[in-house]
Amino acid sequence: MTAATESRLRVRYAETDNMGVVYYANYYIWMEVGRVDFCKARGFNYRDMEIEDGIFLAVAESTCRYRYPARFDDEVIVKTRIEEANARTVTFAYEICLVEGNRVLATGSTRHVFVSRAMQRTRLPEKYHGLFGLATTATLG
Amino acid sequence: MTAATESRLRVRYAETDNMGVVYYANYYIWMEVGRVDFCKARGFNYRDMEIEDGIFLAVAESTCRYRYPARFDDEVIVKTRIEEANARTVTFAYEICLVEGNRVLATGSTRHVFVSRAMQRTRLPEKYHGLFGLATTATLG
Amino acid sequence: MTAATESRLRVRYAETDNMGVVYYANYYIWMEVGRVDFCKARGFNYRDMEIEDGIFLAVAESTCRYRYPARFDDEVIVKTRIEEANARTVTFAYEICLVEGNRVLATGSTRHVFVSRAMQRTRLPEKYHGLFGLATTATLG
Amino acid sequence: MTAATESRLRVRYAETDNMGVVYYANYYIWMEVGRVDFCKARGFNYRDMEIEDGIFLAVAESTCRYRYPARFDDEVIVKTRIEEANARTVTFAYEICLVEGNRVLATGSTRHVFVSRAMQRTRLPEKYHGLFGLATTATLG
Repeated sequence: MTAATESRLRVRYAETDNMGVVYYANYYIWMEVGRVDFCKARGFNYRDMEIEDGIFLAVAESTCRYRYPARFDDEVIVKTRIEEANARTVTFAYEICLVEGNRVLATGSTRHVFVSRAMQRTRLPEKYHGLFGLATTATLG
Repeated sequence: MTAATESRLRVRYAETDNMGVVYYANYYIWMEVGRVDFCKARGFNYRDMEIEDGIFLAVAESTCRYRYPARFDDEVIVKTRIEEANARTVTFAYEICLVEGNRVLATGSTRHVFVSRAMQRTRLPEKYHGLFGLATTATLG
Repeated sequence: MTAATESRLRVRYAETDNMGVVYYANYYIWMEVGRVDFCKARGFNYRDMEIEDGIFLAVAESTCRYRYPARFDDEVIVKTRIEEANARTVTFAYEICLVEGNRVLATGSTRHVFVSRAMQRTRLPEKYHGLFGLATTATLG
Repeated sequence: MTAATESRLRVRYAETDNMGVVYYANYYIWMEVGRVDFCKARGFNYRDMEIEDGIFLAVAESTCRYRYPARFDDEVIVKTRIEEANARTVTFAYEICLVEGNRVLATGSTRHVFVSRAMQRTRLPEKYHGLFGLATTATLG
């Protein structure tokens, strides 16, 4: 369990649908925003890990429970934390809230595996272990 | 448990991402394609239910497990069936496969609640019960 | 011609494609972000105009010239101004730049007509004229 | 000027917005669908050109005029043709219509330049010239 980071965003018109609310798949895009910010707050840049180390975080599983609909122009907070991590996989948990009143819109999670550019499963390089809250001893994985 | 319908689609460039594969949120859009086709195969049009009856299927929960990445221009089948349904909620299950080799790309589910245009929870009108595989007696819900 | 507003955003992974750059349609979503911010900076809320007055800005035309590709996690500025406006139509012009080095990524425009919820063309209510830089005398339109 | 190809698609819920119609940026995704089909009808696969030749079609300019709104579940035809082509650039023109009544929803165009994976401008390999309606003599470009 780790401290959560908070990302703010505003609902785009493009993200709404015919029902007048945010289309359900778009919450997963907001989780991505939260995840990227979380990594930055931990002191590393997801983009650099891709470019410099050739390590990608492929999504293995995603879930979302929708509590209350978000609408166009709502200001939203994505609270992101790591739920579980080891050298092969990391699970993020998210709580997505309205800024106004802190009402919970949705909760969700994404589980990722570390892969190479060729999409082969790999282990997280040791230099990143601390950033994901992993011990840096040899017993991992 | 009901018979599955099959929807075919081709991966759009817009659906791919920097990793060269389909972005994870887009599988949920494909589930929507499957769901709409499923309803049509059962003899009713989702759009008509919205317009004529003011009944919407709000998503309450969604999940996806990703097995193998889809890439640009891949031809994909979405197999959709109802996993569970009553007068207040319906759960669809999906299997998403490559046409070539029938390889499973992902499996997932979406649980929906019936709501009015004002997003208030409501019951499915009885005339639709048969289409969702519900008995049409009075004991539902 | 009016003063430009500036909106900042960060490129989402979801917005990139197989080519490793931002998919071309997504620049139009960024223009929407700029447009909504522009309206707010002028002292009115686009959402309120929709809800309170039933006035929508339907897009009649859009154009974009792409100069340099944006990539994941780039920080981007959208500079938005009104190019032309009257009681029936308004044209926004955009310049989209990298924050780093102020390099121009794209320029574009969107022309809109004012419509009712039923998508019938209408005139902009006089109370909004000043916000769009229109004179409030009777000679408009 | 070349013969047009026709692509059929059905409006997805994900493509609609708060106004109850298709969000304006999504027409550009449909143009992509038309463009890819056009290339296939000409006997080559856009994906193969990327993978085998390392040639990409970067978008240099895009335009769309919106005539009539598309709505959820509408069946749509994208008519695609090449408007102009040489060894460095190709311009596609599109007409997007409702299947029902053949009503024109939008017209548009995209201009592309041939680039390498590193996004450097390049010339179309001669083997593809015929497919784009180019003469195969040495005087091009």
